[in-house]
Amino acid sequence: MRPGFTFATDLTVRFSETDAQGVVHNAVYLVWFEIARIDYLARFRDGYPGLRADGIEALTLEAHVRYRAPARFDDRLRVYARCGDLRGARFRFEYEIERGDEIVADGWTAHAVVDAELLRPTRLPEWLGEAIRNAEATAR
Amino acid sequence: MRPGFTFATDLTVRFSETDAQGVVHNAVYLVWFEIARIDYLARFRDGYPGLRADGIEALTLEAHVRYRAPARFDDRLRVYARCGDLRGARFRFEYEIERGDEIVADGWTAHAVVDAELLRPTRLPEWLGEAIRNAEATAR
Amino acid sequence: MRPGFTFATDLTVRFSETDAQGVVHNAVYLVWFEIARIDYLARFRDGYPGLRADGIEALTLEAHVRYRAPARFDDRLRVYARCGDLRGARFRFEYEIERGDEIVADGWTAHAVVDAELLRPTRLPEWLGEAIRNAEATAR
Amino acid sequence: MRPGFTFATDLTVRFSETDAQGVVHNAVYLVWFEIARIDYLARFRDGYPGLRADGIEALTLEAHVRYRAPARFDDRLRVYARCGDLRGARFRFEYEIERGDEIVADGWTAHAVVDAELLRPTRLPEWLGEAIRNAEATAR
Repeated sequence: MRPGFTFATDLTVRFSETDAQGVVHNAVYLVWFEIARIDYLARFRDGYPGLRADGIEALTLEAHVRYRAPARFDDRLRVYARCGDLRGARFRFEYEIERGDEIVADGWTAHAVVDAELLRPTRLPEWLGEAIRNAEATAR
Repeated sequence: MRPGFTFATDLTVRFSETDAQGVVHNAVYLVWFEIARIDYLARFRDGYPGLRADGIEALTLEAHVRYRAPARFDDRLRVYARCGDLRGARFRFEYEIERGDEIVADGWTAHAVVDAELLRPTRLPEWLGEAIRNAEATAR
Repeated sequence: MRPGFTFATDLTVRFSETDAQGVVHNAVYLVWFEIARIDYLARFRDGYPGLRADGIEALTLEAHVRYRAPARFDDRLRVYARCGDLRGARFRFEYEIERGDEIVADGWTAHAVVDAELLRPTRLPEWLGEAIRNAEATAR
Repeated sequence: MRPGFTFATDLTVRFSETDAQGVVHNAVYLVWFEIARIDYLARFRDGYPGLRADGIEALTLEAHVRYRAPARFDDRLRVYARCGDLRGARFRFEYEIERGDEIVADGWTAHAVVDAELLRPTRLPEWLGEAIRNAEATAR
C-alpha cells in the first residue's frame, strides 16, 4: 500500500479505453477515479448503491487529473483512493494510479451530498462520515 | 438522399471514438445509430424527449451492425435512418452510414415501447405511428 | 459453467455504463463482448496483445446483441464466450451474459484476421486455431 | 460571443452521455473540451489532423473541470475555448460551457507537443503559434 493510502482497487485497461494515439483516452481517467471511489465506499454498509437507495446522491463538483505517463491497452493498474475534507455536505477524494512502481496519473475530485429528490445539499450521513474517518485514521 | 431513405443526420468522428487500432471502436456505431434515431424522431412533435416526458420509454431489444469499411478520426459521416415494422408496441430502425460515396456500415435495431413507470409494453402513440408512416411513405 | 461454454469472465457494471433510463446503455454490451473475447484469447500464448505484437489485427466485421433484461449499476455479470467457425481468416464469437440465473443478453460477433500493416486478410496463426479448437472440444 | 473568447463550438447532449443520475456523466466534459480544442485548431491550415500527419502529437498533461450545473439529454450547449500560455512545447486551453445564459461548466487543459515517433517534446510549429496568437489577439 502506498504511504498515505488505506485503499486501492485494481483494473486492467480495456481496448475500448484506448484512442488513436495508441494510449488511454484522457477522459477515461475520470471513469477510473469513479470506480475507485465507488469501491472505496462499498466497504461501508451498502456503499454508494446504499446511499442512492436512501435517497442521497453524491454530485461531482470538480475534477482534476494530472497525466504523468501514458497508460496502454492491457496495462494492469492500481488506483489508490483516499477521502478527506468531510465538512457538512462536502467531501473530497484523492487518487494515484500506479502501474508497477510507476505513477501513471494522479488527481482529485470534490463532491457534494444532495437530497436525490430536490437536489438540495444535505449532510453526509453520520455513519458514513464516521466510517470514512476511521478508515483513513489507519493511514501511515 | 439514398434510395429508400427519407432522413439522414450528419456527424464528424470524435477523437474519443477511435481506439488503438487507429479506427472507430466497434461499439460507437450503436451510439451513432441512436443519434440518428433520436434526430429522426425529433421531427415529430417533441420527439424522443417528448415521449419520455409523456411517461413512455423506448427499449432497445436487439441491435445489429455490419462494419464494411473502417471509419477514422475527423471523418464526415452521414447516417441514414428509416423506421418501419410498426406493430403494437414494436418498431424497427434501419441504418446506413456513408462517407462520401462509400458505405462504412449498416445495421438495424428493434425496439419496444414501454410505460416508463411499470416498464410494461404499451402501444406506440397513434400520432407518432401516423407521423412515421407519413414520413416513410415519401421514400423512393 | 453454462452448457456449451468453456469460458466466462466476470465484471461489475460501472456507473459510467448506465444512462438516463437508469439501465446500462445499449452500446456498452459490445464493450463487454470485447472484454470477454480478449480474456478468452489471453489464455493462449500472449493472447490478443501478442497477436498485435506479431503484426496481426483482428477486425470486427459484424456484431449482434439481443437485450433480454436490463442490466443496472453495480450488477455482477458473467459473460460467457465461445469461439467457432474458424475458417481461413475468419472466426466468430458467441456470448451470453448472465446475472445469477437470469440471461441479461446474448449475441455474437464475426471477425477477420488481417495483416496490421496492409490490413489484408491473413490466416489465423495455426497455434491459435489449434488452441481454440482444443479449448472448445472440452465443452459439454 | 462571451467576453475573452473568440471561438465556440456547439453540440447537443447525446443520450449515451447521460448516466443513471439522469444527467451527463462527469467524464464526458473532457470529451467536449477535446471537441472544442480540435474545432478551434481546425481553423488553422489542416488543424489537428494536419499536425498528426506532420508527425506531431499533442499530449494532454493536465485537465480540470468545474461542474456548475447538471447538463441533461438533448441540451444545446456552446463550448467556448481559448488557447494561451504558448511556451516552447507547452500550451493551455480554457473552456466555458454554456446552456443559454447559464454556465454549465468551465475548466482548462494543459498540453505538450511531442514528436509522434519518439514522443519527445518538440516546439509548437511556428505557423500554428502565430495563428493562435493572431486569433486570440482579437478577443475583447
